[in-house]
Amino acid sequence: MLKIAIYGKGGIGKSTISSNLSAIISKSGKKVLHIGCDPKGDSTRNLMGKKIPTVISILKEKNNLNREDIIYEGFDGIECVETGGPEAGIGCAGRGIITTMEELEDLEVFDEERDVIVYDVLGDVVCGGFAVPMREKYADIIYIVTSSEFMSIFAANNIMKSIKNFSKMKNIKFGGLIHNQRNNDSNINILKIFADMTKSKIIGEIPFSKELIKSELSGKTIAEMYPNSNLYNNFLELSEKILNNQDDIDFSPLSEEEMEYLAAEILKENIYYEEE
Amino acid sequence: MLKIAIYGKGGIGKSTISSNLSAIISKSGKKVLHIGCDPKGDSTRNLMGKKIPTVISILKEKNNLNREDIIYEGFDGIECVETGGPEAGIGCAGRGIITTMEELEDLEVFDEERDVIVYDVLGDVVCGGFAVPMREKYADIIYIVTSSEFMSIFAANNIMKSIKNFSKMKNIKFGGLIHNQRNNDSNINILKIFADMTKSKIIGEIPFSKELIKSELSGKTIAEMYPNSNLYNNFLELSEKILNNQDDIDFSPLSEEEMEYLAAEILKENIYYEEE
Repeated sequence: MLKIAIYGKGGIGKSTISSNLSAIISKSGKKVLHIGCDPKGDSTRNLMGKKIPTVISILKEKNNLNREDIIYEGFDGIECVETGGPEAGIGCAGRGIITTMEELEDLEVFDEERDVIVYDVLGDVVCGGFAVPMREKYADIIYIVTSSEFMSIFAANNIMKSIKNFSKMKNIKFGGLIHNQRNNDSNINILKIFADMTKSKIIGEIPFSKELIKSELSGKTIAEMYPNSNLYNNFLELSEKILNNQDDIDFSPLSEEEMEYLAAEILKENIYYEEE
Repeated sequence: MLKIAIYGKGGIGKSTISSNLSAIISKSGKKVLHIGCDPKGDSTRNLMGKKIPTVISILKEKNNLNREDIIYEGFDGIECVETGGPEAGIGCAGRGIITTMEELEDLEVFDEERDVIVYDVLGDVVCGGFAVPMREKYADIIYIVTSSEFMSIFAANNIMKSIKNFSKMKNIKFGGLIHNQRNNDSNINILKIFADMTKSKIIGEIPFSKELIKSELSGKTIAEMYPNSNLYNNFLELSEKILNNQDDIDFSPLSEEEMEYLAAEILKENIYYEEE
């Protein structure tokens, strides 16, 4: 069984990318469980056509959960779970993940037969809770979604530090960076500088596209809504790379000073960009 | 004494705006303490010309802190403190704030004579730690920095939910939204829709400007580097509004369904924008 986690800064498109990956992996004949680990709770929205109740919200109503209370069947039979999170400003942000993993363990969901588990994890929080998928080895390999925006790269670097912390002890692998272009401004050259500096690599790129916005608006994935589009092929290519990835990248996250250097480079790039 | 907290999503420019506000408030003759409450630890960078050691990092070296270990004097005599945060993926993200407040209490810093305390707080984390400035009433009034990007507004709405939670019990006030244009794409019309829907208001706007990027690159504020610019006047106007603000906005954060509606509106706006 392949257990992958897609990390990234909130709002950077990791839910879009991970739900589209789950859809296309499922279409290739694999049995997929998709677990949204973002307090926002909408990772599976494009697989379900709507938001589903989160484990945290269901636990407010009842104590003993059944499998069907928390696992919903979405597009192409994909099993969908949303951890959810605490009330704003009260409690621990990572608690949703920890609680959900405990519930899924109790229900012996991880002992069931399947091919792939995809975790979609909020990664801009330097909080122990969000490291649980790697710390407790629920995932074996981590991918990071990022644009070329500084804060997105800053979050990516923090996630890489976390992976480094757990890579030796827990044998967690880093699969690479996924460039989400999001808008026409995102500049892959900046991301290439970051990849070079960290000795990591960019394993895939999702271009800006109106199809992606329109599919989001419809609560669908590209596999469901635009199976004949170029974007479908982008996701297919990325999914094949992920399914066949044998790499274990020996990367080095940037120090604070190196990040400052990169920040200045990005700011300079913005000025030049504007002045062109 | 006026105690204000500037909240906002990470990367949205709240450190830029709060450090510039502190600088301009200090220039108006007020004694200012600026406390950076973001694990990133660079809120005071523009006031100091460089990053200063964070309370969390200093506590790793020594146990009994003196005032001069954690309070640094920056531009125009502004006192600067950085809470810092935990190692990536280990420990609690909000711990830096809680620990720092305890240290400042022990040193009786809050009993000293001054006019204004500015807190710069990471606001995209739905974590109890980051609510400490309002929950423990270190701040009396909260401002939220946001662009028109959905995730920034999503974070703003979560922060407003937190304020609502503490407003009655702790008499915490909401001062309003500050629009940070950041780039030419940020659309104030979207923010106006959000302000209308929540019955809140936009109390200030910082336009996109190269001066701001250049001052960041130099580790300076606009008050120090471009005191004769238009942008200086923007910050001056905003600071005067904040110093004289008597409002206590009776706002209503959006429900999940209302946020979904807004998300769809923003996505549609993006499509039209591209097709124009």
